[in-house]
Amino acid sequence: MTSLRSLYTSDGDGPEFGTNMNVDYVIHYRIPKDGAEAEAGFIQLVEALSRAGLATEVRSGDDSSLLVFVKVASEKLLASHIYRERVQDWLYGVRIIAPDKTVAVEFSSRPVSEAERLRTVYLLITKPKNEGGAGITPKIGQWKDIVSIFPLHNHAFNRQWIKQWSSKYLLNDKDLDQIRDKFGESVAFYFAFLQSYFAFLIFPAAFGFAAWLLLSRYSTFYTLLNSLWSVIFFEWWKKKEVDLAVQWGVRGVSRIQRPRTQFRWDREAADPVTGETVKVYSPVKRLKIQLLQVPFALVCLTILGALYVFCFSIEIFLSEVYDGPFKSYLTFTPTVILSGALPALSAILSSFAEHLTEKENFETVDSHHASLVQKLFVINFVTSYTPLFLTAFVYMPFGNLLVPYLNIFNITSEQSSGEDSVVAESFTINPDRLKKQVIYFTVTAQIVNLGVEVVMPYVKRKVFKEVEKAQSKKTATSDVPEEHAFLERVRDEAKLDVYDVTGDYREMVIQFGYLSLFSAIWPLTPCSFLINNWIELRSDAMKIAVTSQRPIPWRADSIGPWLNALGFLSWVGSLVSSAIVYLFSGEAEGPGGDPSGIVGWGLLLSILLAEHAYLAAQFVVRHVLSQIDSPGLQKERAERFAMRKQTLEESIGDALTEKPLSLPLQTAEKITRESLEEDARRISIHGGGTPEQMFWLRQQGVDETIRIGRQFITEAKAAKR
Amino acid sequence: MTSLRSLYTSDGDGPEFGTNMNVDYVIHYRIPKDGAEAEAGFIQLVEALSRAGLATEVRSGDDSSLLVFVKVASEKLLASHIYRERVQDWLYGVRIIAPDKTVAVEFSSRPVSEAERLRTVYLLITKPKNEGGAGITPKIGQWKDIVSIFPLHNHAFNRQWIKQWSSKYLLNDKDLDQIRDKFGESVAFYFAFLQSYFAFLIFPAAFGFAAWLLLSRYSTFYTLLNSLWSVIFFEWWKKKEVDLAVQWGVRGVSRIQRPRTQFRWDREAADPVTGETVKVYSPVKRLKIQLLQVPFALVCLTILGALYVFCFSIEIFLSEVYDGPFKSYLTFTPTVILSGALPALSAILSSFAEHLTEKENFETVDSHHASLVQKLFVINFVTSYTPLFLTAFVYMPFGNLLVPYLNIFNITSEQSSGEDSVVAESFTINPDRLKKQVIYFTVTAQIVNLGVEVVMPYVKRKVFKEVEKAQSKKTATSDVPEEHAFLERVRDEAKLDVYDVTGDYREMVIQFGYLSLFSAIWPLTPCSFLINNWIELRSDAMKIAVTSQRPIPWRADSIGPWLNALGFLSWVGSLVSSAIVYLFSGEAEGPGGDPSGIVGWGLLLSILLAEHAYLAAQFVVRHVLSQIDSPGLQKERAERFAMRKQTLEESIGDALTEKPLSLPLQTAEKITRESLEEDARRISIHGGGTPEQMFWLRQQGVDETIRIGRQFITEAKAAKR
Repeated sequence: MTSLRSLYTSDGDGPEFGTNMNVDYVIHYRIPKDGAEAEAGFIQLVEALSRAGLATEVRSGDDSSLLVFVKVASEKLLASHIYRERVQDWLYGVRIIAPDKTVAVEFSSRPVSEAERLRTVYLLITKPKNEGGAGITPKIGQWKDIVSIFPLHNHAFNRQWIKQWSSKYLLNDKDLDQIRDKFGESVAFYFAFLQSYFAFLIFPAAFGFAAWLLLSRYSTFYTLLNSLWSVIFFEWWKKKEVDLAVQWGVRGVSRIQRPRTQFRWDREAADPVTGETVKVYSPVKRLKIQLLQVPFALVCLTILGALYVFCFSIEIFLSEVYDGPFKSYLTFTPTVILSGALPALSAILSSFAEHLTEKENFETVDSHHASLVQKLFVINFVTSYTPLFLTAFVYMPFGNLLVPYLNIFNITSEQSSGEDSVVAESFTINPDRLKKQVIYFTVTAQIVNLGVEVVMPYVKRKVFKEVEKAQSKKTATSDVPEEHAFLERVRDEAKLDVYDVTGDYREMVIQFGYLSLFSAIWPLTPCSFLINNWIELRSDAMKIAVTSQRPIPWRADSIGPWLNALGFLSWVGSLVSSAIVYLFSGEAEGPGGDPSGIVGWGLLLSILLAEHAYLAAQFVVRHVLSQIDSPGLQKERAERFAMRKQTLEESIGDALTEKPLSLPLQTAEKITRESLEEDARRISIHGGGTPEQMFWLRQQGVDETIRIGRQFITEAKAAKR
Repeated sequence: MTSLRSLYTSDGDGPEFGTNMNVDYVIHYRIPKDGAEAEAGFIQLVEALSRAGLATEVRSGDDSSLLVFVKVASEKLLASHIYRERVQDWLYGVRIIAPDKTVAVEFSSRPVSEAERLRTVYLLITKPKNEGGAGITPKIGQWKDIVSIFPLHNHAFNRQWIKQWSSKYLLNDKDLDQIRDKFGESVAFYFAFLQSYFAFLIFPAAFGFAAWLLLSRYSTFYTLLNSLWSVIFFEWWKKKEVDLAVQWGVRGVSRIQRPRTQFRWDREAADPVTGETVKVYSPVKRLKIQLLQVPFALVCLTILGALYVFCFSIEIFLSEVYDGPFKSYLTFTPTVILSGALPALSAILSSFAEHLTEKENFETVDSHHASLVQKLFVINFVTSYTPLFLTAFVYMPFGNLLVPYLNIFNITSEQSSGEDSVVAESFTINPDRLKKQVIYFTVTAQIVNLGVEVVMPYVKRKVFKEVEKAQSKKTATSDVPEEHAFLERVRDEAKLDVYDVTGDYREMVIQFGYLSLFSAIWPLTPCSFLINNWIELRSDAMKIAVTSQRPIPWRADSIGPWLNALGFLSWVGSLVSSAIVYLFSGEAEGPGGDPSGIVGWGLLLSILLAEHAYLAAQFVVRHVLSQIDSPGLQKERAERFAMRKQTLEESIGDALTEKPLSLPLQTAEKITRESLEEDARRISIHGGGTPEQMFWLRQQGVDETIRIGRQFITEAKAAKR
């Protein structure tokens, strides 16, 4: 990792990286073409910020933009906002112990982290005016000229972070806590997940390696272990997630919903609950749009599926049937088509997904995000796994039947070449094709991906920087010399990509899918992932520290919608891998096995059994894990207990002061039943004796009850004799 | 229902039914044989009660028992206990609004219901001494001579209740609220469930009837509708349950766990959370015992399955193969064997299940109960559905192959009769057998069950009463004449069964199973259940009011473990009914269809498809229902909102008084960049100017920022030209 480290170090040495000038946020304002509009927009921006209690400084950006530096004008105002948020957390049950009534005590017992401060300031900038914010929404409506709002990197921390991580094998809780304090729980959860996944991968890597050495291909035993592992990992993570949320004090934070600015409402109505005016959008309308997800998924499947089938057919034809001229060049055709068409199609479908989600018109950021992720997952599922599905379930079992239909190419190429050099005969299924494909997706593609993700942006940035330096020298001149280096640094950061944790989650979840669905084909898959993810952890850190703007430190209490995707893949894995094992384990010995030994009901039965075994295993694992205590839950219980004890002691007062009335054990006079009845009769004569009163007056005091009871006991004995 | 009504009325007319003498509970104490032990035990009982603040009166019971009447000595003590419980509810989040700090105000705004009072008194009697109770645990240890502790029926209410319910078609929320106020949420939830289930049955009854009229047997369409219905009902009930819990103020009450008296601990240890001494039982030990559930389920399946296979074989042989002497008598053999052996075996297995659960040694009443219910459900599942499974999946498809093996009986009967009159030839499968069996289980058995459940205990009770009256006249003589009638009534109630809602749930859940698994065979099933459940609702009310002791009014926030059983049956239903439809729908036209048209993979495929269609439907229904608001959740939100508003207003104080500091828009002097830099330089010369301070001093106030910004904008425009 030394190279990665130096990559960073070479960049962060000057004194301009030592201070952020107390800047909380930088607003990157693109100057519109119309001069009047530009000035008006800028003035509105500065005034809105000022009204929300934020101090501003403006500096020039690049040729056509301004950088507005923002910090909170008064620390007291910020403290009051943070305190208010903490109280809200308490009311929503996110934190169990109420904030101390003295603000100073509260902040000294639970200091404000960088992430908390930055989040609060961001909310102050973006919250609507009636809630005390500046109401600034980048890129939207009135604020369409605001390119971005970003905090400045803490380069001292970043450098140390990268240095630390690149020199240790495993991350511990402290490392994650640091991420949380700097980048918020949302990013910290990603790293926590990746770290857990990485650590868990050691098991399948070990038995995968053993299976590769000792067992035959398509091993049932390996598949069972792998499936069980995926259940355990999934269930364990669900628990760990809760635990982390408690430790980080964000459990249930997803209940505090951030309203979406783009939400459009049908009408305003009085809330039946609060009586306040709320914005209503008909859930039926939304449901109608949500139904479009079904055709959307089908369209994705059809379009991407068709593309794959097309390329697949060409590929098979060229590599295994065709033997005409230019074969060595032509074999690249499908790759060229795919690498051109696939990203384009994916992008079109993704933007369509975004559109659809926009139309669903959610009220909160979280529900919008979850819905979008769901759709992106469908696209990713199809693009990632279709080639393997085609090979495993179409080419391998039915190749002999289907390849002759590729004659259509045969004819075409005959016509074009004008000769009879195409040999479509002697076709046999290539049994290694499946394995080769899996290796491609689990090794080659991962390496390529790493390059695209980290090295390319870094190189791109360096190149752009040089080009720009050459082009425009003039902005530099207008800076005050002391600030020049700092401002240049900020201008650089303004040009960086916005970091989106979604992309990183997607990558890992799709990877988990390869493991769960297809690793039966090549049991070294988990080993490859283990190595890849060790690097991935560091390279993602690099991505945040070097090639992205510092992310807004949002909170989160889980990995969100990806959890469902993970569960789904783990479950589909049980179906797909059992089918693969059933189909191919027989032919493991000799190549080009005969599919006649395979029976429909055998395949279905193995799928059915595997699925139910999976569900049963899930049930058992869930039960066992639920029995185990975890530090986070223990902490929560302890806090709850302390809170309860305190509340009980403090606020109940009068009601509980009374001690149970112990009736005195009187030294009673000798009482016969007759005298008691006498008493009762006397009461009834003197009035005031209801039957109920009389009933309870017959035995006065415990002693009498005991006496009479003994009498009954003696009588009962006597009667028995 | 007039007869049921009169059944009750004839019984509750005397003045002794008008009052309960302010008695809260009656403790039925059986006098042990040893006289000294008897007296000591009795004295301990009375003293323990007295120490917990309870007043007592003793009367003689039957020949060998005492009745100890208990009431709370001081209403203030009771109030303090109830108030304390309400505070606890609030701390656990069961109620959202905190109890009013003045006890009187709290009780006048939320009056104490009969159920709440009785529950509190019961806890006072049974709670351990160190928690302020009397520590009395009926039937266990020191208190083994206490037969029962029961509250007295409120006969005035009961009479009105039965009268009302027997004269209306549908119950409404008010009826359920009444039950809740008198018998607690636990019983009220059962009636709410039964009522909802009854109302929902109208749909399958309607389309079942239509299917019976119009469609062929084993209709796919009916099965799909029925399966969809069961999904909707299940998901709807899950929502309704939460709603009811909120309305009744018991949501989350299951979190407040009642400790089990029988819990045995390994060791005492300091709780890591609270520091208090707690009793620890190793979860690993428990897990080991829980693993025994698997062999237990297998044993149930084997034993009961073997019994059924045995009887089934005899039955088939006798009814459809055998044609020898005494045939008309012999056909009853299997019925006789079954009705003798099945209840005995069930009882043995149930007591085994109880033993096993006892061994699992749970800490709380709820977890113990849930675990027991799970085991009982296994037994009930096997006993209820095995006959139909055998007919549908063994007899019908394989009858032709298997029946010849019944020759073993053939030989035996040949030897015994000495003649050749047994005709084992000409065997054909009886296609109506399945339908007949379903009709038996869904109509005949339900009617028989109703008789056993309601009419028999009533008759039994009447008879016993007469017998007893004839036998012992003497206890009557020792009573005070005014109390005699009342005491006789109490003695009667002491002899009644303890009402256990578990049995009633079991009956309904098993019924739901018939509907979900087998109603494809006979689509009139839901009609039969609809009628049955109308009566069931009333007869269960009768059971509580007339033939059982008044139940202890426990709280509950759901139907508990039965919910899982319901979900399980609904899911298994999708598998079983699709298999049935696939197997038999082809032969619907002609009897004795040929199984050769049935293929293994077709069966498996239809099961696989049905199951996944079921899961997909469940997903969709869940999603749609989650979009719909419910009155209970609305109420909860309203309370939470009010609470939050109040807390925010009350307790935050100083931190929020500060208004955002709006920086004054100064009428600034004309500022040039040069003069600003001058300022900054001045500061740096005079010391005290860190780079950060200087950065923020360049533009003093909003006006300056705006001015400088405008300058930048103008410059940018100029540069572009």
